[in-house]
Amino acid sequence: MKIIVDAMGGDNAPQCNVRGALHAVKEYGVEVVLVGRGEDILRCLKEDGIDTLPAGVEIAHADQVVEICDNPATAFKEKKDSSLTVGLNLLKNGGGDAFVSAGSTGALLSAATLLVKRVKGIRRAAMAPVVPTGKGGAVLIDCGATAECTPEYLLQFAFMGSYYAEHVMGRPEPRVGLLNIGAEPSKGTDLQREAYQLLKKAGDEGRINFAGNVEAREAVYGEVDVIVTDGYSGNIFLKTMEGTGGFLAKELKAMFKKSLVTKLGALCVKDGIAHFKKLLDSGEVGGTALVGISKPVIKAHGSSDDYAIKNAIRQAASFAASGIIEDITENIDHMRLERTGAAAE
Amino acid sequence: MKIIVDAMGGDNAPQCNVRGALHAVKEYGVEVVLVGRGEDILRCLKEDGIDTLPAGVEIAHADQVVEICDNPATAFKEKKDSSLTVGLNLLKNGGGDAFVSAGSTGALLSAATLLVKRVKGIRRAAMAPVVPTGKGGAVLIDCGATAECTPEYLLQFAFMGSYYAEHVMGRPEPRVGLLNIGAEPSKGTDLQREAYQLLKKAGDEGRINFAGNVEAREAVYGEVDVIVTDGYSGNIFLKTMEGTGGFLAKELKAMFKKSLVTKLGALCVKDGIAHFKKLLDSGEVGGTALVGISKPVIKAHGSSDDYAIKNAIRQAASFAASGIIEDITENIDHMRLERTGAAAE
Repeated sequence: MKIIVDAMGGDNAPQCNVRGALHAVKEYGVEVVLVGRGEDILRCLKEDGIDTLPAGVEIAHADQVVEICDNPATAFKEKKDSSLTVGLNLLKNGGGDAFVSAGSTGALLSAATLLVKRVKGIRRAAMAPVVPTGKGGAVLIDCGATAECTPEYLLQFAFMGSYYAEHVMGRPEPRVGLLNIGAEPSKGTDLQREAYQLLKKAGDEGRINFAGNVEAREAVYGEVDVIVTDGYSGNIFLKTMEGTGGFLAKELKAMFKKSLVTKLGALCVKDGIAHFKKLLDSGEVGGTALVGISKPVIKAHGSSDDYAIKNAIRQAASFAASGIIEDITENIDHMRLERTGAAAE
Repeated sequence: MKIIVDAMGGDNAPQCNVRGALHAVKEYGVEVVLVGRGEDILRCLKEDGIDTLPAGVEIAHADQVVEICDNPATAFKEKKDSSLTVGLNLLKNGGGDAFVSAGSTGALLSAATLLVKRVKGIRRAAMAPVVPTGKGGAVLIDCGATAECTPEYLLQFAFMGSYYAEHVMGRPEPRVGLLNIGAEPSKGTDLQREAYQLLKKAGDEGRINFAGNVEAREAVYGEVDVIVTDGYSGNIFLKTMEGTGGFLAKELKAMFKKSLVTKLGALCVKDGIAHFKKLLDSGEVGGTALVGISKPVIKAHGSSDDYAIKNAIRQAASFAASGIIEDITENIDHMRLERTGAAAE
């Protein structure tokens, strides 16, 4: 298994990207291709006391870097020699099994869609992070790749999310819920009402395990393994979770720091606090899968440290080994509406 | 100030409703009209050792109760003698200054809209709860009254939320944010993009203090005083907050209960935990204002205990005293689009 890593993308690049990649090679036995400025990558290695390229590590030189100020839709074209473009072309041409980047989400999404392409028949790729829940996490699909969706997109997200939960997260017969503001099929907007019928049909045919509508609160509690939603609402869901977690963690910290007595209290629950932090740490999961692209692509968090990059590489390897892209390809006929149908596009 | 209280609505009615109302009379010096089955209300008083109706407390008899199985859209018509219908008719006819109910949200919304009516020119009433944030709370408008909105609705929500934040919450020049998935005006769906322009214009004219788009995470951190959104997304935001808060509170509880040592830890931060609980407790705020109706209506949480009912009555009194319905009425011309405009309806 060979993972292509964008060495230049993210707030802590290239140092943390290079370091995380090396940890992944050691820990998971994968090979990595570090894409970026060769001299920068070698300098990073040197800073960690490594003078020769370790076994399993290659460098693919790319002279440019996609910056936050670049237009995400066109950056990969304008910067043909960027680590993003070079890395994705490598992926496309079989130079590796998956691609990991902590760079701009928008640029990665555009570039992956236009260079590597979507699976034939998939209308839109989706960002599918695993979010913490009361029952060990759920895949949220989509969380922002496509703000405005059709019922057909949501049908495709349901299938893709289900395959991901089953084959990457190891959940047999994953429960698929449609994010909504009430349990009844009549709830929500036209989008949810129409999607409900499509998902129900797929459930009745035994293609997915459709659990009906799921409210946001129950989704957080872990009622389903897959949370299907349009990118706008999915982003609101994800960011609200992150915000609330961050807000409460801050309150908790203040509570423990108040006095000598409360500091003693913190000592008493040290392990618990570590577990709590882990729950809230996006670096634990590693990154967000871009699902629907014809090859595995993982977006690592922009603020990824080496630990998060290492985890994103692990996740990319699981994604590549899971066979879900093959699943999608084989079942695409059940995920499409007739092009003549009103809701098709 | 006289508050009309639905004695029969909610999970803990009538006992907690009656008890909460009596506490409010004592604590805030308001008068209350308890609407519901007279004999049940008197029995509740008796159970608390009260044999004669205290000063400031009236009973308005209503023989029926709107149940969860009733059709929310028509319940008030089908049950003309319900506490809901009798109470709202009292409000309409000047028998009190505000109405509080912990009964069905849908039924209350329909009944308030059709019996008491919206302020002339307001297209949709909104549910506007105060949600906890890093900076003492923000008003979220709408959180589910209208799932599908037009840009004009959001413009009206922005004005109404701003008046509410200023006059009920006491925030001078409240910062109004449009909930979105990014800061740039181009973000979101057509709804957000069009609403952005309307809110910006209102901000440029000095009618509201428009702070631009606000992402869900920053909204939780308290970046704005008013979070403007359609009812679908607002509901996702609210329920995700509640779910995440509940999930983390449960984890925290488990952490403290693990062993003797962790229990000692809990003792050390007792006050902090109480504060933490208060942050997450919807009963603290009391209820959710129904804004846009021509008289003040407060929806208390269905699971309200006497403390939450008391707080909802306090909130109803503040709402009635705030003059925001007058503000809305006076400024309605700035909150409407030309009926000929494409985005008008």
